[in-house]
Amino acid sequence: MGLTIALAQVDTCVGDVDGNARKVLEWTADAASQGAALVAFPEMTITGYPIEDLALRDSFARAADRAVARLAKDLVDAGLGEVVVVLGTLGRSPQGRATNRALVLHRGEVVAHYDKHHLPNYGVFDEYRIFVPGDEQCVVEVDGRRVGIVVCEDIWQDGGPVSLMDEAVVELLLVINGSPFEEGKGHVRSELAARRAREVGAPVAYVNMVGGQDDLVFDGGSFVVDRDGTPLAGSPQFVEHLLVWELPEAGTRPEPGLLAAPMDPDAEVYSAAVTGLRGYVTKNGFRSVVLGLSGGIDSALVAAMAADAVGGQNVVGISMPSGHSSQHSRDDAADLAKRIGADYRVQPIGPMVDAFRAEMELPGVAGENLQARVRGVVLMGVSNVEGHLVLATGNKSELAVGYSTIYGDAVGGYAPLKDVDKSRVWALARWRNQAALDQGDLPPIPESSITKPPSAELSPGQMDTDSLPPYHLLDEVLDAYVEHAEGREELLARGFEAEVVDTVLALVDRAEWKRRQYPPGPKVSALAFGRDRRLPVTSRWREPKGPVDE
Amino acid sequence: MGLTIALAQVDTCVGDVDGNARKVLEWTADAASQGAALVAFPEMTITGYPIEDLALRDSFARAADRAVARLAKDLVDAGLGEVVVVLGTLGRSPQGRATNRALVLHRGEVVAHYDKHHLPNYGVFDEYRIFVPGDEQCVVEVDGRRVGIVVCEDIWQDGGPVSLMDEAVVELLLVINGSPFEEGKGHVRSELAARRAREVGAPVAYVNMVGGQDDLVFDGGSFVVDRDGTPLAGSPQFVEHLLVWELPEAGTRPEPGLLAAPMDPDAEVYSAAVTGLRGYVTKNGFRSVVLGLSGGIDSALVAAMAADAVGGQNVVGISMPSGHSSQHSRDDAADLAKRIGADYRVQPIGPMVDAFRAEMELPGVAGENLQARVRGVVLMGVSNVEGHLVLATGNKSELAVGYSTIYGDAVGGYAPLKDVDKSRVWALARWRNQAALDQGDLPPIPESSITKPPSAELSPGQMDTDSLPPYHLLDEVLDAYVEHAEGREELLARGFEAEVVDTVLALVDRAEWKRRQYPPGPKVSALAFGRDRRLPVTSRWREPKGPVDE
Repeated sequence: MGLTIALAQVDTCVGDVDGNARKVLEWTADAASQGAALVAFPEMTITGYPIEDLALRDSFARAADRAVARLAKDLVDAGLGEVVVVLGTLGRSPQGRATNRALVLHRGEVVAHYDKHHLPNYGVFDEYRIFVPGDEQCVVEVDGRRVGIVVCEDIWQDGGPVSLMDEAVVELLLVINGSPFEEGKGHVRSELAARRAREVGAPVAYVNMVGGQDDLVFDGGSFVVDRDGTPLAGSPQFVEHLLVWELPEAGTRPEPGLLAAPMDPDAEVYSAAVTGLRGYVTKNGFRSVVLGLSGGIDSALVAAMAADAVGGQNVVGISMPSGHSSQHSRDDAADLAKRIGADYRVQPIGPMVDAFRAEMELPGVAGENLQARVRGVVLMGVSNVEGHLVLATGNKSELAVGYSTIYGDAVGGYAPLKDVDKSRVWALARWRNQAALDQGDLPPIPESSITKPPSAELSPGQMDTDSLPPYHLLDEVLDAYVEHAEGREELLARGFEAEVVDTVLALVDRAEWKRRQYPPGPKVSALAFGRDRRLPVTSRWREPKGPVDE
Repeated sequence: MGLTIALAQVDTCVGDVDGNARKVLEWTADAASQGAALVAFPEMTITGYPIEDLALRDSFARAADRAVARLAKDLVDAGLGEVVVVLGTLGRSPQGRATNRALVLHRGEVVAHYDKHHLPNYGVFDEYRIFVPGDEQCVVEVDGRRVGIVVCEDIWQDGGPVSLMDEAVVELLLVINGSPFEEGKGHVRSELAARRAREVGAPVAYVNMVGGQDDLVFDGGSFVVDRDGTPLAGSPQFVEHLLVWELPEAGTRPEPGLLAAPMDPDAEVYSAAVTGLRGYVTKNGFRSVVLGLSGGIDSALVAAMAADAVGGQNVVGISMPSGHSSQHSRDDAADLAKRIGADYRVQPIGPMVDAFRAEMELPGVAGENLQARVRGVVLMGVSNVEGHLVLATGNKSELAVGYSTIYGDAVGGYAPLKDVDKSRVWALARWRNQAALDQGDLPPIPESSITKPPSAELSPGQMDTDSLPPYHLLDEVLDAYVEHAEGREELLARGFEAEVVDTVLALVDRAEWKRRQYPPGPKVSALAFGRDRRLPVTSRWREPKGPVDE
């Protein structure tokens, strides 16, 4: 007889140790009812992930310990004591320092534990800051089958516990993960797991968390690969899911199970942003959101995402026209709100702008900023009175070059497009509309919001291209300079014009202070602004303009 | 004959590789003119410190290399080739990864290098993220004397290169540092250096950088201690300084040299905040600052600091009275501005507030926030038109409990009191006034700004104590909860009332999202908000209210 295991792809919440423990109890019951002898939960299940400096707080560690102890008892009380439960929590090293731990619960006891060896400390990760690494292996026997357990980064680095395992040691390698989404990462993960499966000579079961946590999105996509790297089973992304799979008797080939279809790249990025937004809204206790609807593509896409995340009836869209706002902008905003079923309001800003102008001389850009800031005050006022979360609608391209007004259109608690560049904004809008059409629904985003040339509408006849290179070009330069950290020399070697390069680089370098005060938003690319890219505000570094060699 | 060394306590700027190299040239000339055979500069001299993810950028590494090569040549051209120059820069490991490197220049060549072994990755430090550690010692001979070289954290951790040195190996241990200020740290540094001197059996020369860099302040305070731990020479804090000292012939006792007097704790914290502010203003290309003057103590202290940092004539103070502003507040604001020689203006906010109120219902706190946000728009407008840096005047206590209006009084590019709690604000104001009196000057801060009960003046008769515990109590609870990471259990055990503790903890936990968007400000305490304390915004963690044991 084989060993039935279940991968519980759950959405935990940072800090909610009791709620997360309850979730383990519920999902274990579900797994047991489907015959699972072992159920595995994601990295840091009890504490949520990532917990950052909460790991350094004794009272938090004590609470996590208590939640685990209670859970062990509750499992027994619920008749689930025989199920082997693998979960993540905050551990302690022999010296009393925090570790990133996997625990194995059985019959009301912690029967084994494993402390993560490889602590990622790059990109969005700070684990070397808060944890000390473990140095021991963990192999448990479940119904006579040997299961090796490791945590996330342990399979990303060569060496460590996995390198010591082979088919004599384990019959199944179980990896519990909190692996944040970025585009294309699912493929990397499955390739990596396949490689480790071949190295170890045993199937690899990979369980990942799902849900939004500040600027990270966890996409789930848990899976099992065979010892030869063949995919055997896979969960869908961006939803909680219990993947049940049977490790066959030794010497027997496993049966392929459910395999979720891979997602279209635009669908994946759109879903990631929606998941991040939904997580931020619900886990922070909001029920609704408010945003400014300009009629432009950014706010339209954010509104559509918000409707998908929390329901159109929980979206408040406010049109805040000025004298520079075109009639088509107002029509598009109203049309959008109607399509998604939002609470649509119009609040002209003229009287407030005029009141400032009567008191102060604010020419040029100062006057443009004024309009954006009056809108920010309106949104924050509505939020203060009615309790909606304010969404900032800026995209990654704007954030890169500082093409936004701090304390103006940058106000908000969350910024769904923070890591989506303008080119991708259009692509996602088109994808979302097509997805609606494919399902026989009304596309949420008015076509004219997608097709019209972008304008901030802060001065007469203003176009984004007055201040910036065309977005397709801007986004290419940004991709090379920001995401790939290329220098001016490399950019020129790629064939970009010096003038464009110099303009864009100067804008990016100068805008760091604005980015520092921007709200969090979901990371969807290989390199997002925020904790993923940490640069000083105060810096005289400018890419040298001289010749390559001197 | 002894060996004359010079410790060049300079203020470098992140990214300004050419400017920093020029500074090395100039200070080496000065040191040589005073007979120094060796001159030592702080950690990461050429690149500035800390450079964060600039360390990962190839073009930056190349530029630093070129600046060093040019400097080596320039030193020779200036007739300084015989001087041994020890400086810090970005190095590369044999695998091509970034290191935190000390270089020794002599006769136009790099004659030795040392890569920092211990990479701090706690508190404000992320060095494990960007550097790989070195594993070799560095001892150079200067005029026949053996000088061991290490970098900063290498003396803070046991083990590593220092543990391998003894008097047979080195006659002087030279430590180059970028050690950020926090209150009381100077004492810790000198104790530590004394311990290492005794371990190694040789004097320790400690050179530290000076100046502001975003949220860090470097206080200098370079020094030499003898092999028995006796202080031999010491530079003043918060100024650039060249400390020249002679290592006597072997077997001879060194002469004591200049020893700067230790600073009063309030003087030290005040100077740190001024240094941070001055660094931010000047290194980011500003010449002047603007802030709102309410007549209260926070804005008064910030204005006094600004006047000390950039000159009162470069400070624009704007009184923005509303109907709730008392006459004494306006008088105090005007009085303060006059005392510090600021450009004083009055901009009533009534007309703008009324314009919003005519369009929107904004009762209660929403109406209070509106007033603060209108003031924020005014300050940003003046900044946009005239180019001053906006200063946020909030203190650490307010930031802790979220007692401020985001996009309102929180607007600004820099927040000098970000790490100064309210109790300390009063103490610093009193200290500054007394310092003025001691010098026969007019105290900058009106006495009534110090003595009156604190009020936000956003509603009739409002007092801070309506919403918060008295500040002396609040600050004690915050110190335990925030700086010492104590839990509710520990706080109750200290004798704080449960009601106060629960109120404060709930406020602190809930305000993380506001802190995330707050401007940078100088770290002066052992634990500042910002990069020093990294907590998730999305968190359901609340200190458990149950009994200690269950």
